[in-house]
Amino acid sequence: MRGKLVQSLQEVIKLCGLRDGMTVSFHHHLRDGDHVLPMVMSAIERMGFKDIKVSASSIHNSHGCLADLIKKKVVTGLDTNFVHSCVGETLSKGHMEEPAIVRTHGNRPHALETGEIGIDIAFVAASAADEAGNMNGIDGQSSFGSMGLAYADAWYAKKVVCVTDYLVSYPLTPVSIPEIYVDYVVKVDCIGDPKGIASGITKVTQDALGLMIAKTAADAVIASGYLKDGFAFQTGGGRISLAATQFLKAEMLKKKIVGSFILGGLNSLLVDLHESGLFETIMDCQCLDLKAVESLKKNPNHQEISAAWYADHHRPSCVCKRLDAVILGATEIDTDFNVNVHTDSNGIIMGGSGGHSDIANGAKLTIVVTPLVRARTPIVVDRVTTKTTPGSDVDVLVTQRGVAVNPARGDLAQKLKDAGLPVKDIGQLRDLAQKICGQREPTKFKDKVVAIVKDRLGLPIDQIRQVYD
Amino acid sequence: MRGKLVQSLQEVIKLCGLRDGMTVSFHHHLRDGDHVLPMVMSAIERMGFKDIKVSASSIHNSHGCLADLIKKKVVTGLDTNFVHSCVGETLSKGHMEEPAIVRTHGNRPHALETGEIGIDIAFVAASAADEAGNMNGIDGQSSFGSMGLAYADAWYAKKVVCVTDYLVSYPLTPVSIPEIYVDYVVKVDCIGDPKGIASGITKVTQDALGLMIAKTAADAVIASGYLKDGFAFQTGGGRISLAATQFLKAEMLKKKIVGSFILGGLNSLLVDLHESGLFETIMDCQCLDLKAVESLKKNPNHQEISAAWYADHHRPSCVCKRLDAVILGATEIDTDFNVNVHTDSNGIIMGGSGGHSDIANGAKLTIVVTPLVRARTPIVVDRVTTKTTPGSDVDVLVTQRGVAVNPARGDLAQKLKDAGLPVKDIGQLRDLAQKICGQREPTKFKDKVVAIVKDRLGLPIDQIRQVYD
Repeated sequence: MRGKLVQSLQEVIKLCGLRDGMTVSFHHHLRDGDHVLPMVMSAIERMGFKDIKVSASSIHNSHGCLADLIKKKVVTGLDTNFVHSCVGETLSKGHMEEPAIVRTHGNRPHALETGEIGIDIAFVAASAADEAGNMNGIDGQSSFGSMGLAYADAWYAKKVVCVTDYLVSYPLTPVSIPEIYVDYVVKVDCIGDPKGIASGITKVTQDALGLMIAKTAADAVIASGYLKDGFAFQTGGGRISLAATQFLKAEMLKKKIVGSFILGGLNSLLVDLHESGLFETIMDCQCLDLKAVESLKKNPNHQEISAAWYADHHRPSCVCKRLDAVILGATEIDTDFNVNVHTDSNGIIMGGSGGHSDIANGAKLTIVVTPLVRARTPIVVDRVTTKTTPGSDVDVLVTQRGVAVNPARGDLAQKLKDAGLPVKDIGQLRDLAQKICGQREPTKFKDKVVAIVKDRLGLPIDQIRQVYD
Repeated sequence: MRGKLVQSLQEVIKLCGLRDGMTVSFHHHLRDGDHVLPMVMSAIERMGFKDIKVSASSIHNSHGCLADLIKKKVVTGLDTNFVHSCVGETLSKGHMEEPAIVRTHGNRPHALETGEIGIDIAFVAASAADEAGNMNGIDGQSSFGSMGLAYADAWYAKKVVCVTDYLVSYPLTPVSIPEIYVDYVVKVDCIGDPKGIASGITKVTQDALGLMIAKTAADAVIASGYLKDGFAFQTGGGRISLAATQFLKAEMLKKKIVGSFILGGLNSLLVDLHESGLFETIMDCQCLDLKAVESLKKNPNHQEISAAWYADHHRPSCVCKRLDAVILGATEIDTDFNVNVHTDSNGIIMGGSGGHSDIANGAKLTIVVTPLVRARTPIVVDRVTTKTTPGSDVDVLVTQRGVAVNPARGDLAQKLKDAGLPVKDIGQLRDLAQKICGQREPTKFKDKVVAIVKDRLGLPIDQIRQVYD
């Protein structure tokens, strides 16, 4: 049997036969602490490759090297579900010839399965592995938890390289991705910085405005009638969403409601809901802090799931379709309830759907929480700069000045009104935002398309154009 | 979201669009207690289908209905890794037009992956499931443990039906096969009889002859030098193999040796080795008794593995290639060390490789244990009636009258001699067997090929012909 252990990234890149024009892939579970993408891309640059395409589940703060590599044409293509501004700005300024493809967490595994994304070499960071490439994300000094967003890379890439800093005797247990998918194993000194790994730690908002929005969002969930035994819930990691979760917790305790599952993106607050018995199960595609990692390791009803299981809408079913309620953020939301989480007020790429569009569609009740304005920029607008999540998948907008219900959900509007919530037409909220900020010129773009936005099914839903410098 | 729950097997067969000529598949984890294959095949017969091909990981005592269905031409094709005589006799008597394909546990998932076996509908028995089809084999009243041999059916079949008698609220945890592979879920009264599920319970041999062979086999493992810290071991469920395991246990206790993993086919004796700390890990493709099921449920270092992970030799690696020693049985073994576990002394099909050929190749030391003769039939012969496992993958034969070492393993012969083991030429053992039984006429066959035997790589290694009535 051929051994799989290889001494260096450079050697494994050679063994895998990397050539100009090929595609390499990465997962983002190490988040802002990831060392693997920078190490591999640096080796690829040093070896003189050009015209490399990068497929990554997300681009984080730790991946700023890509901006430079794009400018040098070492990297000439990008397919990902989220782009931090450290790379987004480079894209928005038109430095990459071909448009980036930005999609959802649930669509990426489908695109891999169908061959729409073809990966030549997947570099899969593992916090623990054995020499055959059995791996997990829960053991070792750089543990990051669920490997959910890496499964499809292992299943479908032509070559799979496990990169770890913690090599154990064969066989590792438990195993998230088994050796049958793995061609090579490379031991490096350090795959990531634990501080950065836990960058998903978000504090519950303490400011009065945020708390008011959070309380109203929780009241909307309660009024909707979905908060009852068997409740299934997901929330983003934003400060308002987390505060809303705290209010829901209080209600569940008061009414002795036991929910069925929390879907994560998982942080300590959500783990706490499970450990205190308010939710029976956690379904976990990614861990956002170390308490979540610990929980995956110790709680038997904390189930690791792949991104396909999480949200591939082309499968016979996926977990997100079972959600009752989700509370999500927005950079902008328009009067048709379309949400932008891709571009900032200057039109620069600084985010992406991740699971936003997937779960907005999946949940019976999708609530977007946001202040009306941020830093004198209106959030409720006539038309979003970039359409990330279609308005047809958003049910309620909660702001500090009122609640708007998607007209398609007349049933819901009545329930919220009956509960005494300040239901308004979304046009009124847009007017209020405009009044605060004054009439604002729409952002101007050049003609060049720098990114194509794909929806949860992989269909183009919008384009992002080059900004003026 | 479309619901997956369907009221009856008949209805789900309709929904899946079964037509004459199509292939349906089953796993055999319920063993002699399986009700699912008989229930489904009975529905298929009642609905008037003909010319159905059956792909099953094994055919057990509970699957005798297939004999009748073959005679009625409801079933006209069979692809499997083991055939109990209740169906084997029907095949051997030529009742099926096209030859059955008999392969190994490790090759079946590969044949599914490449499309060599194309499954139209996989019926996957689960002892617990939710309405989305998340399933496991450890919960519920008909628990059978690892679902290892069913994974590939779920991955590759065009339609997948989960059949369960224990439906839990969504989401089930833990999950062996997730909902993303499952099209329909059918709740039936009972998937199996727990007594039959545990048919793998085998008693350690008590007879003096068996104990002598077992002791010698254990001594051969010890003399080989492989029994040291990190030892990886698998054994068949035969009475002599189990007794040999007991002798190895005593040696490990005496020498304070801690092995790395046991590979299963798992029974209570092997679980006991893990629970008493003699082996760190269990890698488990199938549970042979209820103690094994319990262990999978409670022991964190008891890892469920797929058949591909177990033994697909086309993968970059698989667990069986890491074995140090295996102790296996034989129906016949010839002077080239080829082993037959397919046909009995009358040439009738009554078994199959299962994992025999896979692990014989994978292990560093492969020992076959058998008495020289059984019921006046020689076991050590000039030429096996059916070649299951090639002699090149067998290192040592242990009988009550001596030990033969494959000439290709000269190093080993010397070690065994040095340890005082009664090493003989395999020809001498054949002569002894002949002397006891007298010269025996070779079994006569008709021309018709009733089964094609495939090796661990999927290549034809032998054919089985029709017997005379």
